[in-house]
Amino acid sequence: MNIDGLIQQSGAWRTPDSEQKIVISSRIRLARNLRDYAFPGWGGAEECDRIWRDLSPRLCDDVPSLKPALCIGMDELDELDRQILTERHLISREQAEKGKGSGLILKKDETVSIMVNEEDHLRLQMLVPGLELKDVWKRIDALDSEIEQIVPYAFSPRLGYLTSCPTNVGTGMRASVMLHLPGLVLMNEINPIIKGMGKIGLAVRGLWGEGTESSGNMFQISNQMTLGEKEIDLVENIEQIAQEIIEHEKNARTRLMESRERFLRDHVGRAVGILSNAHLLSSNEALDLLSGLRLGVDLGIVKDVGRAVIDDLMVVAQPAHLQKFEGKVLKPKERDWYRAERIRKGLTKRRTTRTRGKKDHE
Amino acid sequence: MNIDGLIQQSGAWRTPDSEQKIVISSRIRLARNLRDYAFPGWGGAEECDRIWRDLSPRLCDDVPSLKPALCIGMDELDELDRQILTERHLISREQAEKGKGSGLILKKDETVSIMVNEEDHLRLQMLVPGLELKDVWKRIDALDSEIEQIVPYAFSPRLGYLTSCPTNVGTGMRASVMLHLPGLVLMNEINPIIKGMGKIGLAVRGLWGEGTESSGNMFQISNQMTLGEKEIDLVENIEQIAQEIIEHEKNARTRLMESRERFLRDHVGRAVGILSNAHLLSSNEALDLLSGLRLGVDLGIVKDVGRAVIDDLMVVAQPAHLQKFEGKVLKPKERDWYRAERIRKGLTKRRTTRTRGKKDHE
Repeated sequence: MNIDGLIQQSGAWRTPDSEQKIVISSRIRLARNLRDYAFPGWGGAEECDRIWRDLSPRLCDDVPSLKPALCIGMDELDELDRQILTERHLISREQAEKGKGSGLILKKDETVSIMVNEEDHLRLQMLVPGLELKDVWKRIDALDSEIEQIVPYAFSPRLGYLTSCPTNVGTGMRASVMLHLPGLVLMNEINPIIKGMGKIGLAVRGLWGEGTESSGNMFQISNQMTLGEKEIDLVENIEQIAQEIIEHEKNARTRLMESRERFLRDHVGRAVGILSNAHLLSSNEALDLLSGLRLGVDLGIVKDVGRAVIDDLMVVAQPAHLQKFEGKVLKPKERDWYRAERIRKGLTKRRTTRTRGKKDHE
Repeated sequence: MNIDGLIQQSGAWRTPDSEQKIVISSRIRLARNLRDYAFPGWGGAEECDRIWRDLSPRLCDDVPSLKPALCIGMDELDELDRQILTERHLISREQAEKGKGSGLILKKDETVSIMVNEEDHLRLQMLVPGLELKDVWKRIDALDSEIEQIVPYAFSPRLGYLTSCPTNVGTGMRASVMLHLPGLVLMNEINPIIKGMGKIGLAVRGLWGEGTESSGNMFQISNQMTLGEKEIDLVENIEQIAQEIIEHEKNARTRLMESRERFLRDHVGRAVGILSNAHLLSSNEALDLLSGLRLGVDLGIVKDVGRAVIDDLMVVAQPAHLQKFEGKVLKPKERDWYRAERIRKGLTKRRTTRTRGKKDHE
């Protein structure tokens, strides 16, 4: 399986010249298991392999929501390709470690994907730009029904969907929104908000999911609880909380513009200057500077760069994407060199060809 | 006395589009005292005032090397103007503190100046771009003779010229060269060289003279001893040592290009990026970045900025110059804002209007 085509297209989580400012993307994943098989952790390699071989062609061919689909066995990919899929939020770090019997069914536009034999038999994922959780829920619910017509799920009338890890039992759903919150970070107001999230049962994570720090001022808000509430209620709750955080962020940005304008313009200007002229950029520095640049674009301080360009750079500046583009294995120090080059070129190219320049605040 | 005209012209220590790379300027000052008067520290305010009133018109009118001359009493200047003169290396910080009875005789092109009633009755200074100490010695020696025809100096056949501070007795001469040594700093090789200078009787100081740190990788090398050696020998010694340091610096730059090219390009690129885009720049950060930019120009990495532009910015980015240009008193934080603006504009303007672009190494 060759996934080289993927890196030529933008990720599912951004549309060309996206209107999105504070919300980057909405994502829902459902954990599902097959009724007649042991969970992947118990079933052993052979059973996993049988499931993958039986199920993957049927998912690819018979599930309308997935078409046109790619069917990618983990054992067909080298380490770099697996890392590419991780960087594109299509598989988890855990699945990237797996081999034969584990795989990914992916709709070509990357909006819909199914991890097969990761922690559960099936992990359905839908990822779209903007704050669209309710719509995503409708669509992934439909996908879920399409799949259930092909294979019976492990379901308990009392508990709901059964999962490998008890924290997912019930709805099996994790809904999340990715928010870009540089205003709250610069105003030193992010920590109380993160603490508040914990108190109301929401988790706050970094750009790359569980256990990662928040690089580039990106924060992923998701539900902790999967049991005892309807999916639509969980989803509406997260959307509502996200709206509140967005208001806080807008407010912080307004206050930055009003009372700390020089500091803000300096922050944005330095981001532009370093991204456009540095020759060595670590992944974290790049993300933080791209965040500063994005803030500048959002506030109309920077007018000649599109948000979509920045979102793309956040992905292509990741280690595996860099190596894939260069066609060779790169040591971390070498990656810093190629990352800076790719970002410089990305910003220059789009600056001269871009025709639209939105200035209005969200 | 109005010195507003001065800030419209470049300082004496740089020529337009200077060819100079590592050596910025050569400077000699001679400490002289009048035979028939007490030293300024002893004579008291009245005697100083009498000397200034008697002597300054005669120096302005009768000394050919000073014409056309400005005759500036310290008591005619506000604090800002005195600081301007300090930043232009025309008076010392000590003289800037003085009032009536102390003054400056200045040749309009700023190459020749005489501080009257600073620590000594007369401090003759000549400052030119490049490594020209021997030539400067010839010219200041001639100036010295011209003045001696007007007023008899305090001179001892045994000790030489007498001065307020015993460290200046003898020749009364301090000869110095200002060197820009970013290569040695970046290669971490500057400290042994500074230590070595001390051992052979030379002092190493910063951009603004005694007691200042070396901002912008500028190092001023001067003689410590004034007694027991002929002026020409002292001068030749400093020129020879300066040549050796220049060779070390060239060597360090070559090694940077060869073995740390990526680091070097990043260093220069970041300097360009931040100077062209930041909105808050402290004096020290500005000098360090201008040093990085100058290194980039010297090595042909940056092609669209002239060295003379950078040298000018090093002066106009100083606190008093900034305030003079803006026509108002500025707090340090405000200065950081105006400094960044002036540098951004200075670099943009010259980038588009500059016609020459030298690429050759020194």
